[in-house]
Order: sequence, then structure tokens, then C-alpha cells
Amino acid sequence: MTTTYPLRLAMVGGGPGAFIGAVHRTAALMDGAFTLVAGALSSDPAKCQERAAEWGIAPERAYDSWREMLAAEQALPEEMRAQVISIVTPNHLHHEVAIAALHAGFHVACDKPLTTTSAHAVAIADALESSGKLFLLTHNYTGAPMVREARALVAQGEEGPIGTLRKVYVEYLQGWLSEDLETTGQKQAAWRTDPKRNGPGGSLGDIGTHAHNLAEFISGQRITRLLGSRRSFVEGRAVDDDAMAMIEFEGGADGMLRCSQVCVGRENGLAIQLFGTKGGLEWRQEHPNDLTIYSATEGPLTRRTGNGYLSPLAQSSCRVPPGHPEGYLESFANLYREFADAIRSGDPLPTHLPSIEAGNTWT
Amino acid sequence: MTTTYPLRLAMVGGGPGAFIGAVHRTAALMDGAFTLVAGALSSDPAKCQERAAEWGIAPERAYDSWREMLAAEQALPEEMRAQVISIVTPNHLHHEVAIAALHAGFHVACDKPLTTTSAHAVAIADALESSGKLFLLTHNYTGAPMVREARALVAQGEEGPIGTLRKVYVEYLQGWLSEDLETTGQKQAAWRTDPKRNGPGGSLGDIGTHAHNLAEFISGQRITRLLGSRRSFVEGRAVDDDAMAMIEFEGGADGMLRCSQVCVGRENGLAIQLFGTKGGLEWRQEHPNDLTIYSATEGPLTRRTGNGYLSPLAQSSCRVPPGHPEGYLESFANLYREFADAIRSGDPLPTHLPSIEAGNTWT
Amino acid sequence: MTTTYPLRLAMVGGGPGAFIGAVHRTAALMDGAFTLVAGALSSDPAKCQERAAEWGIAPERAYDSWREMLAAEQALPEEMRAQVISIVTPNHLHHEVAIAALHAGFHVACDKPLTTTSAHAVAIADALESSGKLFLLTHNYTGAPMVREARALVAQGEEGPIGTLRKVYVEYLQGWLSEDLETTGQKQAAWRTDPKRNGPGGSLGDIGTHAHNLAEFISGQRITRLLGSRRSFVEGRAVDDDAMAMIEFEGGADGMLRCSQVCVGRENGLAIQLFGTKGGLEWRQEHPNDLTIYSATEGPLTRRTGNGYLSPLAQSSCRVPPGHPEGYLESFANLYREFADAIRSGDPLPTHLPSIEAGNTWT
Amino acid sequence: MTTTYPLRLAMVGGGPGAFIGAVHRTAALMDGAFTLVAGALSSDPAKCQERAAEWGIAPERAYDSWREMLAAEQALPEEMRAQVISIVTPNHLHHEVAIAALHAGFHVACDKPLTTTSAHAVAIADALESSGKLFLLTHNYTGAPMVREARALVAQGEEGPIGTLRKVYVEYLQGWLSEDLETTGQKQAAWRTDPKRNGPGGSLGDIGTHAHNLAEFISGQRITRLLGSRRSFVEGRAVDDDAMAMIEFEGGADGMLRCSQVCVGRENGLAIQLFGTKGGLEWRQEHPNDLTIYSATEGPLTRRTGNGYLSPLAQSSCRVPPGHPEGYLESFANLYREFADAIRSGDPLPTHLPSIEAGNTWT
Repeated sequence: MTTTYPLRLAMVGGGPGAFIGAVHRTAALMDGAFTLVAGALSSDPAKCQERAAEWGIAPERAYDSWREMLAAEQALPEEMRAQVISIVTPNHLHHEVAIAALHAGFHVACDKPLTTTSAHAVAIADALESSGKLFLLTHNYTGAPMVREARALVAQGEEGPIGTLRKVYVEYLQGWLSEDLETTGQKQAAWRTDPKRNGPGGSLGDIGTHAHNLAEFISGQRITRLLGSRRSFVEGRAVDDDAMAMIEFEGGADGMLRCSQVCVGRENGLAIQLFGTKGGLEWRQEHPNDLTIYSATEGPLTRRTGNGYLSPLAQSSCRVPPGHPEGYLESFANLYREFADAIRSGDPLPTHLPSIEAGNTWT
Repeated sequence: MTTTYPLRLAMVGGGPGAFIGAVHRTAALMDGAFTLVAGALSSDPAKCQERAAEWGIAPERAYDSWREMLAAEQALPEEMRAQVISIVTPNHLHHEVAIAALHAGFHVACDKPLTTTSAHAVAIADALESSGKLFLLTHNYTGAPMVREARALVAQGEEGPIGTLRKVYVEYLQGWLSEDLETTGQKQAAWRTDPKRNGPGGSLGDIGTHAHNLAEFISGQRITRLLGSRRSFVEGRAVDDDAMAMIEFEGGADGMLRCSQVCVGRENGLAIQLFGTKGGLEWRQEHPNDLTIYSATEGPLTRRTGNGYLSPLAQSSCRVPPGHPEGYLESFANLYREFADAIRSGDPLPTHLPSIEAGNTWT
Repeated sequence: MTTTYPLRLAMVGGGPGAFIGAVHRTAALMDGAFTLVAGALSSDPAKCQERAAEWGIAPERAYDSWREMLAAEQALPEEMRAQVISIVTPNHLHHEVAIAALHAGFHVACDKPLTTTSAHAVAIADALESSGKLFLLTHNYTGAPMVREARALVAQGEEGPIGTLRKVYVEYLQGWLSEDLETTGQKQAAWRTDPKRNGPGGSLGDIGTHAHNLAEFISGQRITRLLGSRRSFVEGRAVDDDAMAMIEFEGGADGMLRCSQVCVGRENGLAIQLFGTKGGLEWRQEHPNDLTIYSATEGPLTRRTGNGYLSPLAQSSCRVPPGHPEGYLESFANLYREFADAIRSGDPLPTHLPSIEAGNTWT
Repeated sequence: MTTTYPLRLAMVGGGPGAFIGAVHRTAALMDGAFTLVAGALSSDPAKCQERAAEWGIAPERAYDSWREMLAAEQALPEEMRAQVISIVTPNHLHHEVAIAALHAGFHVACDKPLTTTSAHAVAIADALESSGKLFLLTHNYTGAPMVREARALVAQGEEGPIGTLRKVYVEYLQGWLSEDLETTGQKQAAWRTDPKRNGPGGSLGDIGTHAHNLAEFISGQRITRLLGSRRSFVEGRAVDDDAMAMIEFEGGADGMLRCSQVCVGRENGLAIQLFGTKGGLEWRQEHPNDLTIYSATEGPLTRRTGNGYLSPLAQSSCRVPPGHPEGYLESFANLYREFADAIRSGDPLPTHLPSIEAGNTWT
């Protein structure tokens, strides 16, 4: 392939007040692998134009709807046309946009969760298969260097410091929905607690999916059985704001998963502990550059980003030397950069990049 | 009451190679509230005498059996006679010794778990009631100053920084039984994995009871329902070495409890997080002098031992000023000291001290 | 002013093997405020072209020398011409490039330290004054949200939680030069230990300047006196690899500054503690999203990025919500973004942005 | 020797309101190696009797003065007589009591600092030499298991993980004297800021001595030169409440020492970092059970109390298994227990126990 950088990106969603759209833009632009050329950024045309101006998108490529955008971009000369569609809308729109974009010949980067029903997920998978395009599901925490190091250590199996996995404890605790923020006009809270836009899983869809994905990504195993419960602590809330489950993995390990958005004062507490026959691992997203390794014969060892002792993928996931903190945006940007590399090379996605099969929906 | 310090203590169990017996002795002696005057320290008379010599117990009061000790001590003049019997044997002996000691007119300090069946627990409770004596179940972590501070903060309810409890996550993770240590002759591992001596609950009886007790002590609520699983990861082990449960509290909170002795490299990882409508708490036993308080409007606050801002009970539970670490033995010693105070005063046990009703056995 | 985004940036230095050039590029591009249009990236033309291709710079704007670049860019039509020159060369070239760029009508962003002698510093200042352009000295840690929060808290003086400053302890400990890496061909080590390219201050120039700047930035005071020592632990090294000093501030506080590049195993340990009459602060660069606030009447409070309780500048310095780590690059990017805002607005630099007067050279 | 446990201890100082006297008592009693039989606990006879009753000392052995006590105890039959005198008075009394006690044939345990002038120190040393008795200076932090582990690692020199020492940074930061507490009647503050009772060194004598001792104990080297400053931040205070120094060691290392009692909100912040040619160490007293080991080739390793991988002395300094926190009192008690062992065995003090030569006075 001869595609050169930067690749051209178009975005669906991401208007003023949105959170994740701006994150995708920064992540895509960070290394110069993408340039943002078009957008259907809001269902309100004025807001779309406002954001387009702020983001340096030409007014004529700030579209009133994503359907219009797909058609107009398809009609552009190949060297101008967007190559990748980034979907950052509320969850209920993911499947429709993704399928249409794939059919129209675009690669797709889609925010998690994949969609809100299994049927929709299967439909996206079918569209992907027939399209010959690439699909990235932005489970961003899999881009964190020390998460990748953890996965590499587990993958060594009995030869490595962890051995055969026995226990996996994963949790994602937040507090920002401990009151009924959704009735105050806060946009993020409003759509995430609306089953029509968010799907049936409240905390499960929003953050439980991250916990689920992280457990599978590091363990290298699928969760095959679970027994759990969901609850809405805030009166009148239509979706769960808290969930917990006992989980079992295909390889014989078991453990627990919990997620909550009513743990007052907890910010973004994604954390995982894994233990095998020989050692253990602990990673906490809020201090993402540390990975603790437990062993039976020495005290806990902390591996850190940027160091030469890391596995190759973890090393190549770092932008700065040891002791220079890698942030949330950098790990997100790793996915976009590697997605661009795959598109440019014409190869399939590397196995560590989350694609359609990472899109378990739990519903 | 005119009883003066030190009170006279006799011990059942605690011979060479035992762990918890030495802990009880140090805890009891730490503040000069007890002196150790007698013991049935081992079923092997030579070992009993050896330990007695090491511990400064007169040879004639180092008895060959606990039955002999109870009889002989009863026959001594009141001013010499042991006043309290400390039971630090494997679990299966607790009920028999406790009942006999109470019937013989001694106060009893018993290591946890209370016993191994509900029937035995009821029998001890009956003996206690008819005896008019005091009974201390040494759930030692309830003696830690910051655990007591946590309990005080939760007890303030809607007036306090936590509000009404919603979530309680408690865990107790160890790694020392990740291999079959019990076949190597290690005494601690041998009895703890033997259902005849330990009771049916392996990790549950040994450390799950601590997690259960801690959750109830801090929350001020009983766990009324649970759904869980137990497992033995080590081949051939006769008791569970790992367990997990979803739990519900009488006041409406729910959460998770997990305990494991196969988390390689974890030492003594008792930890709890609680979240209410207004804030949250986190305490980790391995750094016991810190209590984190979460709130919706400020960052996490760390309260620490020895400071004047603590609740009265937490303050009186500290022996040294701020920044001077209180250890495991000190929190254990708090129970003994307050037990001695209650005996001396003739009052019932204060409600914060664990007695018979803290002895849920989960079986 | 009507300048629109992105501004056009040209870089001097930053060729293959350089560290800080790539950092400047990512930082400048992160928010779309700059686009990199030109560069004199290496003294080796082939390497310059190689990097230019990698970075998406047109071959004809990848120049063989910075002098050629300044001339050629000046000759371009205004709407194409670079607006800002970013200087990321070894230290000894800073002054010459900066002065020429300012004289040629470009704004300048210059890596720290400003230069290697006081005379050069004065010459840059003179050039700046006569140019009417803006000058950014990239003391990147001043862009970290919690550093800015610290500064805001100290600035409240007796009205705030810190009161009048008494003590400032600042340190910057690294280990990467604990052996004579410079003789192995490592490019970073080679120029930083060569007084001709680095200037006379080894660790002092490289990292001591950061510590010095951080202490002044947060305290809001200049260091007016110091007494210290410098040392080269590695045999044959021509510059200091370790230094320490007792320091005094214009406002009456005193303290200590230390920097070292031979603290084996320490990565990038910039840290500061400040204490006033009412409270204290602690910030550690390796976990930059936490700011500890000490008080006399409560335990330590940890403020964290992304929260609404932060000062306005700290809040606007965050790109992601609470619990989503901001990294090294983000804090660096804050300087570039705010520099772009100032250029666009035509206003002087805001006082919190480091400019020429932050360039104390200590030599 | 045939001396059996418990040894008999008499105390000078330690009346109501004193801090360190109660600590010495608990430490001495913790393992049953000592029993407290006599005391000159206060210059106020009523207070002395009050404390004696509380502590279980017979009224007739609660003396009105230490001179009276020495004479009376000497006159008792050998099997009753106190064997060790513990000196826990304000500093100005140490030398007189110590010399008299040694001359009277008692072993002496003396709180730090040794005394307030070099002449007094020499006089104590002379009395000790002629007495043939043992002398313990209770630099209690040298009893902490992980401090002893640190010393053992450094002692391995080039064979060990640290190599030859280059840098030693030690600090002891407190905040409790940040206001003029001494004028409020607080007893601890009153004598410690009174040069007549405390000696000329305020923070230096109280806590700087600990920092100095810790640096020498772990490094295994004497500090041979220093350059520093002292200051009183609180108006009207007669002694320093803050000090700092650049220091040099006999083996070629250098570093910094700082101590302060005006760092508001800091509790008992004794901390040390040491770096050698191969690795480094970090220990923080407030979390004393962790010792961080830095290396050039792996991430930081944390060694913890109670583990089998520790050096023999560190292991024997632990009372409880891994993960069960050892506290301040336990490390203090290690000194008393080993002092008792030495007395009982008739051997000289082991070299790791602080005796007269640890009593550098800095004045």
C-alpha cells in the first residue's frame, strides 16, 4: 500500500458538550497519523458548524447529517475523500452508522460499547466481513503500555512470572452518578441513563464493558459464564447504576467483576488484579504507569513505562522516557496510530487491537 | 470492683510453632493489664514446659491438658488463680474449652472463628449467659484505630460524611497457601487445611470470617443474605482456599466479599471500601494508619492515627502520637486492654468489643 | 487579531535520535493549534529529509540549515510562511537561533535552559524587546494542572490554606547517567555532558533548571541567594552530574534544592514540598495528577486533575475528566496551546506562561 | 551468665504527661524480657506515686528522686534489685543520671540525644568504660526491621545491590511546633524549646539527631563534614525549629540532611534515600514496613517485613508474619529485647545496637 500520512478522518458525533468526541480527535491527531477533514458533529447544524470552525474543518465538510456526509464524501475525489469514519455518538446510533459506513467503503473507528443488542452486533460483524475494511472498537485502556505489558506477562503462561491463571478481580468504580444528575440537564448523564440512547445497560454498558474487556484482554481468555446482579440506587433511574458479578473464564480461572457509578468520590477507578500459579499482577488506571508484579519469593516489583525491560509492544506504546507520565489520551492515541499503520500497510489489524470481537454486549 | 492490674491470664494452646498464641501473649502483656500465670500450651508435656520456661510461667502451672489446668487453677486461692482463659487452639477445640472454662467461672478470650458449627456456637452462647462471665472473641482488626474511626463515621448516618450506606466491598487476599504447603510439615498450613481441626471452612473460616466481621463492624449492620462460591485451587486440598460472594446487608446496602489464600505474593490483604449517599471510606490493613475519606465536593482526605481530629474511641485506641505507626500487635492489644478494663469495672463489654454475637460461622 | 488556527510552526533541531524535538511536535499538534510546516531538523541533510518525510513536512521545506530556513520562510507569502520557530537544539545554539528568528520577525518557542551564559541571555532579551514578538521558554512542568493549582494556593497568601511561605524543598533525581553513557555513543548523553554544547552546567543545566523554575513558579518568588556544591561522580565526566544547594527566597522562605543524574533507578523524580504558616503542599511529577495539601487541623487532602474544585487555570489546563490521567505531553501541550492563543489574540503572554525571565542560567 | 527473664528495670522520668517514658515502658515489657520494678518518675512525689500505681510499681519503690532511687535499689538484695536504669528525662539530666547509675553498678538505657554537650558525652563514655556495664542509647528507628535490612544491603558493598555509596538524603519533617505551642502550657513543647533542659539544639537535638543517626546506621559510615544552617521560624523561640545541612561521609558519599518542626501537617516524616554505584534504597518511617530497592535494570522492588527473603537480623526483628504491620513500639522493643539478651549473655552489645558512640551531639 502507498497511502501516506496523515490519513483523512471524518467524525460522526462530537459536538459541543460531548466528551468522547474531543478525545477521539486529540487521540487521532496526536502523532500526525490523521487529519480531521469532515464531520457530522451534531444534529443541530449551527452547533456542527461551530465545532467545525473550532476544529479547523472546512464549513462545506461540516455536514447536517451522517447520511449526507457519507454520500458527499463518497462523491469526492479519492485523494480528498475521508478514509476513516469515527463514530462517537450515543450508543444506539453505533450500529446504523457503522454498517452504512462500511458499506460505503470507509474504515470505521467506533467508540465502545459496540452497540446495544446482540442482533445489531452480528449485523455490524456481517457488514465488516463483506466490506473488506478495518474496524477499530476503541477500548482505549488496551492501549495503555502497562496493560499491554500485563497481557504479555500472562501470555507467557507457565514459562512466565504469572503461571496459569486462577483469579481475576476487575472493578470500575465511579461516583459521578450518585445523584440524579440526569434531571439537571447535564448532557453526559442524560443520554447515558436513557435506555433509548444508551441501551439497556447503564453502568454495565458505560464502564462494565471496559472492565469486561480489560479482564479478557489481559487474561487472553473469554469470560464464559457469569452470575450477577444489577441495581439502580438513584430513585427513578431507568438503567442500572451499579452491577456486580462472579465470573468464569474459558481457561479455568474465575473471579469477580464490579462496576458502579454511585461510589461517591471515586473518579475513574478501573483496576484489575490477576493471580496465577506462580505470581500476580495489579494495575490501577488512575496511576497507569505502574504495574505491580507479585511473586512468591520476593517483594512486589513495580514495572514502569518507558523502560527497556518492558516487552516490545509495551515499549512501542510509550511516547516519552521513564518517569515521564503517559496519560489517558496517549493510550487512546496508541489505538489510532496503530489503526492508521494497519490501514496504510494493508495488513489485517494486529491481534492486540480491539475490533469487532471485543464488542461483547452483555445484554 | 476492686480487681487490680495486672489480671492473671492462663492460655490454652500457643506451644512452639504456633503463631497466634504468641500474638495473644504479647497483646495481653503490652500494657501491663495482664500477666501470664498458667498454660496448657501443648498436647506434648515437654513442649509445654519448654514454652512455659521461655514465657516465664512457673513449671507447676504449665499443665499437661486444659482440663487439668481448669481444675487446678480453680483449686488455687483466689488471689493467685487465673482470672481469664485465653483459647488459641485450632478451631475444633474452641467450643469445648470455652464452655468448660465459663462453667468453671473463668472469663474467656477466644481466638476467631468462634467455632466450626452453629450448634457449637449456640452452646457457647448458652454457657456464657448462664456463667455471668465476659467473653471476648478476638476479631483483632476491630481494635485498629482507623477501623474504629471508620465505624464512627458510618454511625453518623445522614449527619455524617458518608450518609446512608449503599455499597460495601471487602476482601482478604493472601498467597501463602498457593501451593500444598500442608504436605510439607508446616504446622500452620496443616491444621488450617484439615477439616477436622479447622472446621469445614478453609479460607472462609480463617480469613473470610475477618472480612465478614470487618464489614459488619464498620457498617454497623448484619449481612442478611449472600450468594457465593467456594473453591480449592490446590489439588487434594480438603477445604476451600478461595471463596467469593455477593452480599446484602440488613439496612439495604449490598456488595461483595472475597477471600483467597492462593493470591501469590499477597501477604495479608484485608481491605474494605464503603460508599454511602454522601461519601465513601477505604481502609487497607497493610497500611493501617491511613483511612481515606471520599466526598463529592473535594478530593480524598486521609485521616491518620494519633490525631486530635479523630473520634474519641479512635483516639483512645492509639498508643503513640501522629506519624508513629501503630502495628498489628497494638490493635490486638487494644482488645485485651479494654477486656481487662471491663473485667475490672464489672461492667458488660462495651458494644464495640467483639463478643459472642460476632461469631457468625457461615456454615 | 484574525489569525486562525492552526498556526504554522517551523522547527530547528529534532532530527532522528533526538528526544525533545518529537515532544515539542506532539505538544504543538495535540490540540490542532499548530501545524508543522517546515524544519531544519538536522545538520545532516539526509536525516533532515528522513524526519521531514516521517513528520509530513514537504521536502522543499526541510532545510539544510536554520539560517537557510529563516531566510526561505521569510520570503514565502505571508499566508504560507511559518509564524513560530521552535528551537529544540542542544543548549549552545539557543541564543544564536533565537536572536536571528526574533530579528527575522518570528515568534519563538525555545526549549530550556534559555542559554548557557548570562551574556547570551541578555542578548536574547534585548532581541525580544526590540522585536515585538512573543517568546515561550518551555518549562513544561509549569503546564501541569496540579502545579498550577499549587501556585494558585500559594498565591492566596494569608487568606489561603498555605499562609506565608517558610520552607521550599525541591529535588530532581534521575539515574540514567550513573555510568559513563556518553562514551557509548548514546546521543542524549553525549551532548548533555559536553560543556561545549550543553554549557557549563551538566545536571544543573539539564534538570536543576527545572527544579529552580518549579520552586519559583509555585512560590511566586525569586531565589535570591544560594550556597551549594556541584560534583561529577562519574570519572572523566566534564560537567556536574549532581548538585545541591541551600536556597533563600526574596520573601523570606528558605529551603533546599538538589538535582542528580546518578541516583540509580530513579527515573524522572522532580518533586517539591512547600510549607507556610498555615499549611503545606507536595507534588511529585511522576504521579502528576495528585496534589497533597497539608493542614494543621485535618489529615492530608489530595486534590486531583479534572475536578470542579480546582482553580480556574488548573481546570482549564485539564483535557479529560477526573480520574483520567493527564500526562507529560499534555502539560507540555498546554504551553503551546496558550502560546498560540496569545499569538492569535495579539495580547502579551499571560503571566503564568514562562518567558524570557524564567531563563535563569545559574552560571 | 545465669540471669533469667524478666530483668528488673527502674525508670528515671516518665511521669504523667510525658510521652517517651510510656513508650520505654511498653517497649521494655512487650516481650516479657523486662519487668518495671521501680521508678523516680516525677520530681513531684504525688505524681510519681500516681504513675507508679498506674504502672503496677510498689509504692515503696516509687522514689522521690533518682538519687534516692539509686541508693535504695543498691541496698536491696541482689535478687530484687533493679538491674537496668532507664533514663527518659529531659536531655539536660541525662549525663548526671547516667554517670551516677553506671558508677552505682547499673546497666543504663538512655533516651536520645545522649546529652547536650561534648564534654558531658565524654564523661558518660568514661563512666561507661570504667563501669564494665552495658549502655543502650535508644535510637529506636535502628530497631525497625526494614532499616536493618537497608543497612545489611549497603554493607554488602560492591557485592550487593547498592554498590559503593554516592548519595545520602535524609530528612525528618514535623509540623507540631509551627506555632508557639510552648507558651500554651504544653509540656512536651515547653521543655523541648527550653535550652536549659533541651540543650542548644532544638529541632536538631530532638529529631535531627535521629536523622543523623539513621544516615550513619544505614550507610555504615560516619558523617565527617557538614555545612548547614539553623533557624527559628516562630518568633521568640529560643532554639532552632528548623535546620538543614550539606553533609559528607567518611567513605566519600555526600548528601543532605534536613529537619524541621514547622512543616505544618507533616507528622513524623523521617525518611531516607541512599544511592550507590549499582542501586538505591528508600525508607519512610511513616510506612515503615516497606523498603524500596532501586536498580538500573528493573523497576523498583519493595521488600516487606516478615518475609523469608530478608537478612537474618531483619527477620529476627519481626514479631508477626508478612502483611501484619510492625509498629513504632515494636521497633523500639527490639532494642530493649536485644539489650536484655546481651545483659543475660554477658556479651558486649552487638554492633548493630546503638550505644555511646551513636551519641554525636552536633554542638
